Amino acid sequence: MDTQDTPGYCSDLTLSYGRQKSAIRELFEYGKKISRDKGPEQVFDFSIGNPSVPPPRQVEEAFCSLLAKESPLALHGYTSAPGDPAVRRAIAGQLNRDYQTAYDESNLYLTCGAAAALSSTFRALTVTGKENEFIAIAPYFPEYKCFVEGHGARLVPVPSSLPDLDIPLEGIDNAITSSTRAVIINSPNNPSGKLYREPELQALGSLLGKKSQECGHPIFIVSDEPYRELVYDGRKTPFIPPIYPNTIVCYSYSKALSMPGERIGYVLVPPELNHHARDIYDAIAGAARSLGYVCAPSLIQRVVGLCADVKPDMTVYDLNRRILFDGLTVAGYRCIKPEGAFYLFVEAPEGKAKIFSEYAKTNYNLLIVPSESFGFPGYLRISYCVSTERIQSSLPLFAECLKKYER
Amino acid sequence: MDTQDTPGYCSDLTLSYGRQKSAIRELFEYGKKISRDKGPEQVFDFSIGNPSVPPPRQVEEAFCSLLAKESPLALHGYTSAPGDPAVRRAIAGQLNRDYQTAYDESNLYLTCGAAAALSSTFRALTVTGKENEFIAIAPYFPEYKCFVEGHGARLVPVPSSLPDLDIPLEGIDNAITSSTRAVIINSPNNPSGKLYREPELQALGSLLGKKSQECGHPIFIVSDEPYRELVYDGRKTPFIPPIYPNTIVCYSYSKALSMPGERIGYVLVPPELNHHARDIYDAIAGAARSLGYVCAPSLIQRVVGLCADVKPDMTVYDLNRRILFDGLTVAGYRCIKPEGAFYLFVEAPEGKAKIFSEYAKTNYNLLIVPSESFGFPGYLRISYCVSTERIQSSLPLFAECLKKYER
Repeated sequence: MDTQDTPGYCSDLTLSYGRQKSAIRELFEYGKKISRDKGPEQVFDFSIGNPSVPPPRQVEEAFCSLLAKESPLALHGYTSAPGDPAVRRAIAGQLNRDYQTAYDESNLYLTCGAAAALSSTFRALTVTGKENEFIAIAPYFPEYKCFVEGHGARLVPVPSSLPDLDIPLEGIDNAITSSTRAVIINSPNNPSGKLYREPELQALGSLLGKKSQECGHPIFIVSDEPYRELVYDGRKTPFIPPIYPNTIVCYSYSKALSMPGERIGYVLVPPELNHHARDIYDAIAGAARSLGYVCAPSLIQRVVGLCADVKPDMTVYDLNRRILFDGLTVAGYRCIKPEGAFYLFVEAPEGKAKIFSEYAKTNYNLLIVPSESFGFPGYLRISYCVSTERIQSSLPLFAECLKKYER
Repeated sequence: MDTQDTPGYCSDLTLSYGRQKSAIRELFEYGKKISRDKGPEQVFDFSIGNPSVPPPRQVEEAFCSLLAKESPLALHGYTSAPGDPAVRRAIAGQLNRDYQTAYDESNLYLTCGAAAALSSTFRALTVTGKENEFIAIAPYFPEYKCFVEGHGARLVPVPSSLPDLDIPLEGIDNAITSSTRAVIINSPNNPSGKLYREPELQALGSLLGKKSQECGHPIFIVSDEPYRELVYDGRKTPFIPPIYPNTIVCYSYSKALSMPGERIGYVLVPPELNHHARDIYDAIAGAARSLGYVCAPSLIQRVVGLCADVKPDMTVYDLNRRILFDGLTVAGYRCIKPEGAFYLFVEAPEGKAKIFSEYAKTNYNLLIVPSESFGFPGYLRISYCVSTERIQSSLPLFAECLKKYER
């Protein structure tokens, strides 16, 4: 590399993270530009996973009642580093009611969203002086790479099993080495909407249990769950700790409570995490401390404490999902029907995702994300967290786009 | 180390950060216990730097008006990673008015408080594959160590010049090596209340300029400024970028707006930062990204945008400062008169800070922090961000404590 790229007075790696824009962000910025220049009705922006359903009314009520009733010094003051104990108790209570567990506040560490939870967890599991590998099942959320590699560890992608994007047991079996620290699970999945079933999670658990014994150290599941509550057709996301005890859960309220900007979530270190639960909890707490997380934002902590049992209203997302899936299928697209989250994963014509995405953008202002950045080429991610009207009016364009492209 | 301490399945370093409680936290927890067991009037807790003056009324007004008027989806949605552009413009405007600078939003990166700003900056300045050293002037905020060492760099403490805790130019000169990345400045200082004057900052700037040339790479000042607005006697904190262009400012609103739990601050990368300003900004942005900081909490960003020009009311802190300084001096303590922040730094009798702190705690429930953890033994830190009544009623106890201790 030449000296201009490796200046020697700052980190090359973080410089590259700061310079490189994600494919998603680039499309999003393009969409904002068209919207300003030609009017918002001219652009069909399906690029971003920003909730389109307003926060539940309980969220706004919680903000107002806290601001009206609580002492400002207490409300905006430091909480303990793991978060306000009463808030953690409220969350433990919700988990216990929903999953028949027996957690308490000592199992929870509140974080600035799932990103902070994941980065702190990866940092904590990265052992000094050793090789460290984290397995991600592709397609995966692109930021995993940056969270893992930023701490000097390596992300090892393993492609999902086709056609249904199941857990690739054989691939994971082959990818595990003595340096493997964890397998990252993200179900419901961004970008595919895939939801894993209990039997395949059990099979993964058996494999990891066996491999942990062989390696002589635990191989954890890090379960990234921002979409846990966003499921369709009356399904329930299987809760992984009872299936595989060595599971660390990273949760975010961003999507379920429609407040992604407020940065609130948690790490759950279940007590059943073999005999190392306290060490792992402390190592995550210490990682969060050294990354500069003093505590999660205090007012938002309290809001979440009051809304621990609030579930998202899925009506609009479900309607969008059906209209989009049916409309695109009729138009000739091959789509994977999402069972959770708010993304539709569509096969790119001839597998050429980047080319088709560019074509759709240039000719129809349809902004859809090619799947290369998710580590799984040949697909397109369509975020349907937009108004239903936008989906309906986009359908003729999607149809025409495919027809003209294939000609 | 034995295997119980180095489990091999998680980071020893972050485990130690998670296990070890700071001296400050331990005193604080002790105080809470006494308060519960014997009543809050029985304990004199001067351990913690938690603001005691409520947030200015503009802060509460900003919360209420934002929640009443803005669309919840926009208010709680993702902002761009560096922060809402309008908020950054408001802050740039305040800096330009206060310091006759010409900043704009592209120079500012909003963070979850100064801790996040510092950790991201240290990460960005830590060059892969090289030794990396950051110089801290002792006494210093203990978390610097954990922010610096967590990224694999080394903190190099240099003691302040006595008797006035001036910048130790000779010590810094001797400590600089080819691995030095930055000198951390914290003025007004926690724990001493020391405020540097412009001439000594100029002398430091000259030294660093000369040393940068010798090293062949810039040696930055990282200026940690949570107490910038908290000054007494009509003083103004000198603003460092015009004095030394290679300065990165890490600011927090925690103390000035009395909302330390809300986690809001910024990194300022001034455009005059030689020809590398854009690289440094991008490297800090990339560091923040890989540490898991998606954006600073969105509602709080907007609050700060509306309150950019609000200054703290120093009346109560100033009254506390005078009563405490005068009272302790009369009682025979040797105190350094604070010019900023809300800490009084007091010589420990016979230089035995830990022993005296323990004595004062055990016999008088006076909770004061020994200065060992600030890298500068022999002193006691008394946080006077408490009610004036508590200070007044503590004075006879302080007097008796010293008398009995010296007997």
